[in-house]
Amino acid sequence: MKKNNDFIKIRIQIKKNFYIGPGKILLLEAILQEGSISSAAKSIGMSYKKAWSLVNEINILSKNKMVITHTGGKGVRGTKISEEGVNFIKSFRAIEEKVLKASEKEKDNLYKIFN
Amino acid sequence: MKKNNDFIKIRIQIKKNFYIGPGKILLLEAILQEGSISSAAKSIGMSYKKAWSLVNEINILSKNKMVITHTGGKGVRGTKISEEGVNFIKSFRAIEEKVLKASEKEKDNLYKIFN
Repeated sequence: MKKNNDFIKIRIQIKKNFYIGPGKILLLEAILQEGSISSAAKSIGMSYKKAWSLVNEINILSKNKMVITHTGGKGVRGTKISEEGVNFIKSFRAIEEKVLKASEKEKDNLYKIFN
Repeated sequence: MKKNNDFIKIRIQIKKNFYIGPGKILLLEAILQEGSISSAAKSIGMSYKKAWSLVNEINILSKNKMVITHTGGKGVRGTKISEEGVNFIKSFRAIEEKVLKASEKEKDNLYKIFN
């Protein structure tokens, strides 16, 4: 049984049948770092199609878009994460940190049960 | 956006690619209550085939089986949850409770972001 931080994963329910979990957060963080959806997808081993589809889902459900794409024109091309997006990533990671701490005690108890 | 306890869901990683989350826990609890896999499956709207497959997965990974089925013979037919299984359910629900409490503060922050 694994004993690292992958022990517990959380998913946050935004709407019925729509959750944000570690996968979407990882994608948002990668976009924040890479400044482009295609580079972000590549960096986490996700297909471009899948990444676009997730970004689209997230944006539709957010009051203000989390992922902002500038496509051509005079301005700079590229993809940014909005302030709301950055806040969301921070909140998610903060909850995750708390969850890991809160479950630390029960963890050893659970290990005993499994091979 | 939902504001009830479905806000956050946890999944506990037992092995690589094997998690126990709310679905499997609900099934174990239903078996504990119903004393049979088929009744349990029916009570939570899960197919019998799916329930058996999940029970099988859980049992294979546990040191001692969590779900014990007595099939015919002189003894009583029926399915029980072992002590390990009951402990596991308790631990999972305890972690879940802590997670809900720990994420309470961040919850409102997150609601603001979504429609």
